[in-house]
Amino acid sequence: MTENLKIAVVGAGRMGADHIDRIHTRIVGASVSAVVDIDLDRAGQAAAGIPGARVFASLEEARAAGGVDAVLLATPGFLHEEALIKALEWDIPILCEKPLTPDAATSWRVIEAEQKLGRQSIQVGFMRRFDADYAKLEQIISGGDLGDLLMLHCRHRNPSTPPGFTNEMLINDSVVHEFDVVRYLTGEEISSVQVRLGKPSRNAPAGQHDPQQVLIETTSGVLVDVEIFVNAKFGYEVGTQASLEDGIVDIGLDHGPVTRTAGRVGGDVTPGFEERFGDAYDREIQSWVDAARRDEVGGPNAWDGYATAACCEAGVKAQSSGEKVAVELNEKPELYR
Amino acid sequence: MTENLKIAVVGAGRMGADHIDRIHTRIVGASVSAVVDIDLDRAGQAAAGIPGARVFASLEEARAAGGVDAVLLATPGFLHEEALIKALEWDIPILCEKPLTPDAATSWRVIEAEQKLGRQSIQVGFMRRFDADYAKLEQIISGGDLGDLLMLHCRHRNPSTPPGFTNEMLINDSVVHEFDVVRYLTGEEISSVQVRLGKPSRNAPAGQHDPQQVLIETTSGVLVDVEIFVNAKFGYEVGTQASLEDGIVDIGLDHGPVTRTAGRVGGDVTPGFEERFGDAYDREIQSWVDAARRDEVGGPNAWDGYATAACCEAGVKAQSSGEKVAVELNEKPELYR
Amino acid sequence: MTENLKIAVVGAGRMGADHIDRIHTRIVGASVSAVVDIDLDRAGQAAAGIPGARVFASLEEARAAGGVDAVLLATPGFLHEEALIKALEWDIPILCEKPLTPDAATSWRVIEAEQKLGRQSIQVGFMRRFDADYAKLEQIISGGDLGDLLMLHCRHRNPSTPPGFTNEMLINDSVVHEFDVVRYLTGEEISSVQVRLGKPSRNAPAGQHDPQQVLIETTSGVLVDVEIFVNAKFGYEVGTQASLEDGIVDIGLDHGPVTRTAGRVGGDVTPGFEERFGDAYDREIQSWVDAARRDEVGGPNAWDGYATAACCEAGVKAQSSGEKVAVELNEKPELYR
Amino acid sequence: MTENLKIAVVGAGRMGADHIDRIHTRIVGASVSAVVDIDLDRAGQAAAGIPGARVFASLEEARAAGGVDAVLLATPGFLHEEALIKALEWDIPILCEKPLTPDAATSWRVIEAEQKLGRQSIQVGFMRRFDADYAKLEQIISGGDLGDLLMLHCRHRNPSTPPGFTNEMLINDSVVHEFDVVRYLTGEEISSVQVRLGKPSRNAPAGQHDPQQVLIETTSGVLVDVEIFVNAKFGYEVGTQASLEDGIVDIGLDHGPVTRTAGRVGGDVTPGFEERFGDAYDREIQSWVDAARRDEVGGPNAWDGYATAACCEAGVKAQSSGEKVAVELNEKPELYR
Ligand SMILES: [Mg+2]
Ligand SMILES: [Mg+2]
Ligand SMILES: [Mg+2]
Ligand SMILES: [Mg+2]
Repeated sequence: MTENLKIAVVGAGRMGADHIDRIHTRIVGASVSAVVDIDLDRAGQAAAGIPGARVFASLEEARAAGGVDAVLLATPGFLHEEALIKALEWDIPILCEKPLTPDAATSWRVIEAEQKLGRQSIQVGFMRRFDADYAKLEQIISGGDLGDLLMLHCRHRNPSTPPGFTNEMLINDSVVHEFDVVRYLTGEEISSVQVRLGKPSRNAPAGQHDPQQVLIETTSGVLVDVEIFVNAKFGYEVGTQASLEDGIVDIGLDHGPVTRTAGRVGGDVTPGFEERFGDAYDREIQSWVDAARRDEVGGPNAWDGYATAACCEAGVKAQSSGEKVAVELNEKPELYR
Repeated sequence: MTENLKIAVVGAGRMGADHIDRIHTRIVGASVSAVVDIDLDRAGQAAAGIPGARVFASLEEARAAGGVDAVLLATPGFLHEEALIKALEWDIPILCEKPLTPDAATSWRVIEAEQKLGRQSIQVGFMRRFDADYAKLEQIISGGDLGDLLMLHCRHRNPSTPPGFTNEMLINDSVVHEFDVVRYLTGEEISSVQVRLGKPSRNAPAGQHDPQQVLIETTSGVLVDVEIFVNAKFGYEVGTQASLEDGIVDIGLDHGPVTRTAGRVGGDVTPGFEERFGDAYDREIQSWVDAARRDEVGGPNAWDGYATAACCEAGVKAQSSGEKVAVELNEKPELYR
Repeated sequence: MTENLKIAVVGAGRMGADHIDRIHTRIVGASVSAVVDIDLDRAGQAAAGIPGARVFASLEEARAAGGVDAVLLATPGFLHEEALIKALEWDIPILCEKPLTPDAATSWRVIEAEQKLGRQSIQVGFMRRFDADYAKLEQIISGGDLGDLLMLHCRHRNPSTPPGFTNEMLINDSVVHEFDVVRYLTGEEISSVQVRLGKPSRNAPAGQHDPQQVLIETTSGVLVDVEIFVNAKFGYEVGTQASLEDGIVDIGLDHGPVTRTAGRVGGDVTPGFEERFGDAYDREIQSWVDAARRDEVGGPNAWDGYATAACCEAGVKAQSSGEKVAVELNEKPELYR
Repeated sequence: MTENLKIAVVGAGRMGADHIDRIHTRIVGASVSAVVDIDLDRAGQAAAGIPGARVFASLEEARAAGGVDAVLLATPGFLHEEALIKALEWDIPILCEKPLTPDAATSWRVIEAEQKLGRQSIQVGFMRRFDADYAKLEQIISGGDLGDLLMLHCRHRNPSTPPGFTNEMLINDSVVHEFDVVRYLTGEEISSVQVRLGKPSRNAPAGQHDPQQVLIETTSGVLVDVEIFVNAKFGYEVGTQASLEDGIVDIGLDHGPVTRTAGRVGGDVTPGFEERFGDAYDREIQSWVDAARRDEVGGPNAWDGYATAACCEAGVKAQSSGEKVAVELNEKPELYR
C-alpha cells in the first residue's frame, strides 16, 4: 500500500480528538477519513480543518460511504465488542483503546471472532510498550545479564481524578496498564491479584478509597506491588523498580532543567500523562499504521486485551474481598502463540 | 559527672569489637574499662592497646573488680535477658544491641524489671534513628506540611549473608530495623505483619528463601511494604519512599563522585552497613554516653525493644503461615509514656 | 498550501541522507521530490524507496525539471553561498545546514541578497533551539524570576572525531553551535572570543589540539566558558550550567534506566548527537516545513548565520593568537529586527 | 604521648570558638587548656564550661603558665607570622587556619624558620583535603584509570558575604581554597592566574565585583576555571568537575531527602560551609591531634601555605590588571620534598 491509510476514528471525546489531531499533524502514512460519534456536533468539531475527514453517526454509515481502510476505537469500553466484531467481519485493521472489552467473557468472544478470521487484526492501546524507558527495561530483563527478575515495585500516581471516577475505575482504567506492563516485562501471565486498603487520603473524593496497593503474582512467582494513588496532587508519575538476582533497575525518574534557588534544588515534576507518554502515543499509532499497511499488527494483540480483562475482573473482586483472587485464563489459541 | 563514663563491653565479637574501637577512638566522655567475653583470648584481643581496659569472663567479675559505670551489651540476643536484669539491679545505664530479647515474653520481663527500678535505664541499639536521612524524614512527616503519611515502601538489601543466616534471621536480624523505623516514622504501633514468598534468587543459600516481601500495617492504617533481599549482590542499600497526602519523599539514595566513562554514567554503590551507618553508630553511642552521664536514656528505650520483639514474633509466624498475623501488645506502662 | 511541500535536498552525504529519511518517514506535510548530488550514485542510494524522489547532479537541473517548492542545503559550507543566492532568486524557502557560509564576508553577501528579496526566506540549521532543555532554559532566563544571567558554563563533548577533523573545525563545526546558544540564551550579540590551549589528550589525532577552552563575552558582559572536547571517549554530552543572580540552572544531564549492579550505580551515557538531538532535528524540520507553507521562516534566520560566522572567524583567530579577539558586526538591517 | 594533647587556641572569634567546641565535644585525645584573645571577655565566653581551660591575653602568658602542648591559630592572617615563629621556637605542633600568612614574602620567612627547626611542625587549615568527595576525586585522578587530568571546572558559591568582605577577600579568603584544591588534585604547582570580571550581580555589595571567574594553569598545562560567586543567594555550593582523557568526574552534588510536591521535585541545598564541611573540619583537627602526638604533621604543611600565598598575590594582581599573572615560587626546600 503506497497510499495513505484512511482511518475512521470512532469516538470524538478527549482521547478520540487527541488521536485525530495526532494522525493529522504527526503521523506519516495515514489520514483521518471519517470521524464517528452519535454526537454529530462533537464529531464535527474534531474533524474541523482536516481535509477529507467526513462525519458520521455510526461506523456502518462511515464504512458504507467508502474510504475507510482501518478503524481506531476510542469509545468507552462497553461499546467496544460490537465495533470490534464488525471490523473483524470487514477484515480491516483495528486499533482498540484499552480495555479490549470490560470483562473476560466479552473479551473471549472477540478472541473467538478473530480466530474465525484466521489472522491477528486487532491491536490494543497499551502504549506503555512504546515508551522508551519501559522498552529499555524489557531489554535489560530479557537480556539476562542481571539474572532472573524477582520483584517489581510499580507506582502509578495521578494528580487528581475527574468527577465520577469510581473505585472500580482505579483497577479498570489505571491498574490495567500495570497488568499489561507486568505481562510485558515478565513475558508471563498473571496468576493472582490482591488489594490492600489502608489509610485513605483526605484528597480522595467520596466513594473512592485512594490510595490502594495491588499485589500481583505471575506464574513463575515474580512478586509485584503497585501503588495506585490517583489524587496524589504533587504531579504525575509512572515508574517501576525491578529487583533482579544481580541488580536493581529504576525507570520513570524525573528530569529536565535542574534549578537551585532559595535553598532548594530540583526540577519540575511531570504534570500529566500527556507529557509523560505523548511520544509513546505517537510511536504507538505510527507502529499500528506501518503494520496495518503490511496487513500486520504492530503492538499488543487481542490476547493481551483478553488476559488483562481477566486481571481487571480479579482485581475488582479483590478490592472488595480483601483476599488473594486467582486469575483464570482459557487456553491460549494457536493464533496468538 | 565530669569524669569519663567507664564502660564494660559485654561480647567481643564483630559488633562488640567495633564498639570498643569506637568508644576508644571516636567517642568523647567515655572509655572502655572492661571487656567481657567467656572467650578470654577474644576479649584480650579486643582490649589490646586500650589503656585501662581489663578483661573478664563474666559481667559479675567485671563489676566486682570496680570501675564499671555502664554496660554495653553486644552478645547474641538470647543472652540479653540475664545481663539486662543484672544491670537493672545495679542501677547502671545499659546500651543493649538489638534485639532487646528474642521474643515478646522475655522482653516483657525486662520491662517489668525496669518498672520496678522506676526509671528508664535501657537504651536499645536501633541506630537508624541516628541516621541523618531517617531523622529528616521523621521531621518531614511529623511536621505535617505534606499532610498525613499513607504508605511506606522500604527496601533493605545486603550484598550477601554470612554462613548460618537462617530464614528467621531475615526477620529477627534485618526486618527488626524496619519494624523500628516504621514505629519511629509513624509514631504508632504495628498492628499486623504478613510475608510474601515469591521467586527466590539463585544466589540464596540452601534453607533461606530470599528475597521476601513483608507487609506491615500500623494502628491508623498506614500500609508498609518491605523488600528484604539479603543476597542482592550489587551492594548495600537501605532506604524508604514515603507517600503522603500531598507529596512523595525518598531517602537512602546513593551519592559520592559521579563518573562518566566508556558509555556509562554513575558512581559507587554503598558496599555495606558500616559505610552506610558508621556515622549513625557513632552518634548513637555518643548520645547514649551523654545521656548516661545525666542519668537519662538517649535513644530508643525498653518499650521499643519489647514492641519490636512482638513484631518479630508475628513476622516469623507469618513467614510460615502466609497469613496476616496480628501483633498483640500489653498495655503501655506509665514509665514509657 | 494544502499540498505537501516538495523539497529538493542538496547533498546526499551523512547529514543529507539523514534529512531525506526524516522527511520521508517522520515529517508531515512535506516530501522529498529531488535529491541533488554530483555523485549521482550516492544521490540514487539516498532516494531509493522514496516514491516521487528524482535524482539530479545540480540544483538548477532539479529546479528546471519542476516539482521543487523548497531547498534543504546539506552540502559542505563552502558550497552554500552559491546555492543560497540561487534559491533567493527563485524566491523559495531554504533550510541551510550550519554554517550559513564559512566566514563573515560571504555571509554578509547572503544577507544583502535576502534584503534585496525583501523578506526572510532562509532558516539556518541551529537545531539546539528546538531541543526541549535549551528551550526551557531560555524561558527560565528570559522569564526573569531568577534575576539577570551572569555566567554560562558550556560543555560540548564528542566521543571522537572523523579523520580530517582539523583544529579550525573545532570552532567552525562544533563551537559554532555554542555561539548560537549563547546568542539565543542571552538575546545579545557576542563581543569577544578567546581560546585557551592547555594539556592535550593523548586521544587527540595529530594536528588537533583537544580539548580547548573557549572564553566568550556578550555585549552586556555575560561571561561564558566552553569546554570543547571532541575526543572525550566516554560518550557524547552537550549541556550548560547557567549562573543567574538568584539561582543556578543545569541542563543536559543524562537519564534513562538507572541500574545498580556489582557495586556501581548508573545508566548509559548518550552515545552520540543523533540520540541527543534526534528529536530536535525532527522538530526543526517540521517547524521549517510548517513555516514555509505559510511563507515564513520557522527558526534561526540569516542574521543568526552571519553573526555566528563572525564569531567563528574570531574564534579561529583566537586559537592561534591566544589573545581575546573582538567580534565585529555590521549594523543589523531592518529586515531582521 | 598517652595523655591528652593540651591545646592553646589563639583567637576566640567565630572560627576559634567553633574549634574550641569541636575539640571539647568531638575530638578524642585532646583538650583545650588555654584560650588566648586580647578581648578577655570573648576568650572567657569561649572557654566557659570547659574543665581546665584557662584564659589569657597573649600566647606567651599561656605558655608561661604551663599546660600548653600545641597551638591552634585562629586569628586574622596578618597576626599569624609572629605566633608561628614563636611556636616554632618552642618546638610545639601548630595548626594554622588559612592563610599561612597574607603574602608570599612573609610565608617564606615562616618556611625559613621551620627549616631552621629542621622538622615539619606546621599544619595549614586547608580542610578540603579531609572532605570525602575531594579525597575520592584525588584517588580517581592519581589512580590513573581514566588517563591524565586535562581540565578542572570549579565552583565556589556562598549565599552572601559578611559586611566588609572586599574584592581582595574573594581571592584571599575564598579562592585560596581552590588554589589548594588544584595543587592537591594535580600534585603540581600553579604557574599562572587570570581573573575575568563580567556582569556583576545586583546582590553584590558596593565595592565588590561579584561573581568573578578565575583562570588557573598548572605547570603541566592543566586548565582550571573557578566561578567564585559569594552572593549567590540560593545556598552554598563547593564542587568540581574534572575532565580526564577517558572520563568526566563530578563531586559536590547535593543530596538528602528528595521530595516531590506541588509540581516540583527536589531537596534542600546545603545552606552553608558548616553543613558542607563540618565533618571535614572534625577529621582535620583529629588528624592533626593524632599526628601531633607522634610529633608529625597530619595534613597540608607550611610549603602548601607558602605556595598558595603566592597564588593569592598573583590572583589579586590579576583582578586589577585583567592580565594573566605568572606565579613565582622559590625552590622547594628539602624538608618539604
Ligand atoms: Mg497523517
Ligand atoms: Mg572515648
Ligand atoms: Mg513526509
Ligand atoms: Mg577532646
